[in-house]
Amino acid sequence: MSILDTLPTPCLLLDLPTLKRNIARMAAAVARHPGVVLRPHMKTAKAWQVAALAAPGGGPITVSTLAEARHFATHGFRDQIYAVGIVPAKLATVAALNVAGAAVKVITDDLDVARAIAAFPGPITALIEVDVGEGRAGVAPDDPRLLEIAAALGPRLAGLLSHSGHSYAGRSVAAMAELAEQERVALLEAASRLRAAGHSLPIISAGASPTALHAQRLDGITEMRAGVYMMGDLLQAQLGTHPLEDIAVTVLASVIGRYPARGAVLIDAGALALSKDRSTEAAPRDWKFGRVLDRDGVATLGDAMVVRVHQEHGEVRAAEGSALPLDRLAVGARVRVAPNHVCLTAAAHAAYHVIEEGRLVAVWPRVNFW
Amino acid sequence: MSILDTLPTPCLLLDLPTLKRNIARMAAAVARHPGVVLRPHMKTAKAWQVAALAAPGGGPITVSTLAEARHFATHGFRDQIYAVGIVPAKLATVAALNVAGAAVKVITDDLDVARAIAAFPGPITALIEVDVGEGRAGVAPDDPRLLEIAAALGPRLAGLLSHSGHSYAGRSVAAMAELAEQERVALLEAASRLRAAGHSLPIISAGASPTALHAQRLDGITEMRAGVYMMGDLLQAQLGTHPLEDIAVTVLASVIGRYPARGAVLIDAGALALSKDRSTEAAPRDWKFGRVLDRDGVATLGDAMVVRVHQEHGEVRAAEGSALPLDRLAVGARVRVAPNHVCLTAAAHAAYHVIEEGRLVAVWPRVNFW
Repeated sequence: MSILDTLPTPCLLLDLPTLKRNIARMAAAVARHPGVVLRPHMKTAKAWQVAALAAPGGGPITVSTLAEARHFATHGFRDQIYAVGIVPAKLATVAALNVAGAAVKVITDDLDVARAIAAFPGPITALIEVDVGEGRAGVAPDDPRLLEIAAALGPRLAGLLSHSGHSYAGRSVAAMAELAEQERVALLEAASRLRAAGHSLPIISAGASPTALHAQRLDGITEMRAGVYMMGDLLQAQLGTHPLEDIAVTVLASVIGRYPARGAVLIDAGALALSKDRSTEAAPRDWKFGRVLDRDGVATLGDAMVVRVHQEHGEVRAAEGSALPLDRLAVGARVRVAPNHVCLTAAAHAAYHVIEEGRLVAVWPRVNFW
Repeated sequence: MSILDTLPTPCLLLDLPTLKRNIARMAAAVARHPGVVLRPHMKTAKAWQVAALAAPGGGPITVSTLAEARHFATHGFRDQIYAVGIVPAKLATVAALNVAGAAVKVITDDLDVARAIAAFPGPITALIEVDVGEGRAGVAPDDPRLLEIAAALGPRLAGLLSHSGHSYAGRSVAAMAELAEQERVALLEAASRLRAAGHSLPIISAGASPTALHAQRLDGITEMRAGVYMMGDLLQAQLGTHPLEDIAVTVLASVIGRYPARGAVLIDAGALALSKDRSTEAAPRDWKFGRVLDRDGVATLGDAMVVRVHQEHGEVRAAEGSALPLDRLAVGARVRVAPNHVCLTAAAHAAYHVIEEGRLVAVWPRVNFW
């Protein structure tokens, strides 16, 4: 009997060899660019044990919450960028971490916030967020406010940061590479305006998993940020970030009901355990709420997928034109669900059950919440 | 300065007077039916302090996970139904709770599981799940397996249970009442077949928030289960479960970016803090990822809503044809987001910050995960 038959379900599994393979792939991709550092984004993993593999030697890393900043600083990852626009009320928390030995840098695209950062009585430096086409946050490279914000930050200006989240809409390696180049050009345009005004910009930070992997040229960029590549998911596989079999995180679930008349089974992983993310809806292959694999993570159940979720129920059906192997799906049988969007699915769980060749080798808590 | 200006964001707020009003409304609705007990479902609230209000005197309650079963048993709620199909591997946990003084009943619709329950060397009783039209789980009232499962359970049969989740598709009070009546008739048909075969059925359990509120007749039903009514959300308001202003749970967030050129602001509540639930997509009024209220929970920002979410970013825009009051939405300003589906949104948070007339009166931890 395998540990996969006895772990309480639903629970989150992390396949360690796959994680290591994904980390090595990205490290090699970024190493093609001399002078460019990989600053892994820990928003997906949220566990220092993963950071120790992805950012060996204590950093640098990227974080998405102050809870992550605290967690990773406690575990020796000093050099951090908190890559969500800062508000004045959060500066004291960042400064306290920095006083205790960390070097957490914040980001902003707002003039009033830049002034608050400059005036804050504690150690804080900031990057200006530049909009390179995503249309989420950031100032455009040619926006006059760029110079005003830099002037307000003064010596607390640490560099520029952009996010190429729109690269997720790319549908080929060539498209990703083109978006990476657009991001690079936009960031360097902004940098050149600021440098002409006398500002020093030690950090020029770009990224997202697809562009970090596929960029052809990164001259002028000092670092790439990427996070989801470590774990992988059904969307990233279709974007070419990793092969389909290199999804490191799956949800272990039990069959809780079997309905031959409608060719379906229910599992105990529903909206809470899988999330309601539907990222693959717009992808070439839509896996609804996740692809269903066998207990060992192998695709021997045909193209089974979770077609409907309730809070604690997931309804599994075969893809159109095929049938579920119901004889292997008695109530109590175990399956694994590969996630659409691993950041959201992992966030539903308190810890990773880390497995290697079917053995449980560790349990790593996640730093969820804020 | 209000506590709402200083709580770290994003965080989950629970308005205590609204919670009490929602609980009283449902208690009164069920009290119209003599002999029918309300068995509140704690899957939404997941905190014993809420159970103490919704099920005063220690129960009965419904739970959706074994973590909830343990939590509520520890806090004195003995009489529970764990209302998700049981698997044999979970029986030992239930039996251990029952040995320690609880009376946790399980449910099944599977003959093999019924046999495992009957054979289990520990105190377990079970209800048979009946499908009354939802098409999720359960045996149909006229299915021959109903008698086989009851026979297999033998003296461990505790009754019948159905879930009228399909009542969420109802669009009027009359439609809800009609679905409640269909559920009642289906359950009584199943009960009558089993009683004719000599089985005793002390519990006939039905429910969902809309049917529990709007049922006209419950003769033969011994209890109604409902949960989301306590908290309320944008979907339930449109289903008529409560007035729109009686949404007790909101997410407090800070503006982290302001973009007048596109009439938008970003807040620090995104996909993780709000969930990706899109329940209102099919409702008369679609609030995208949530309705945006002012810091005090009042709708003074027009029909602002979260139109797009990233992991930690929510993009707020006005409804079509109106404009956001950007002068009141500087970076750092506080807003509150009313959820589409409170079960999912609340599950993203570790605790409730309980407020009463703008004061923080308690912090109640949630029993998330499994």
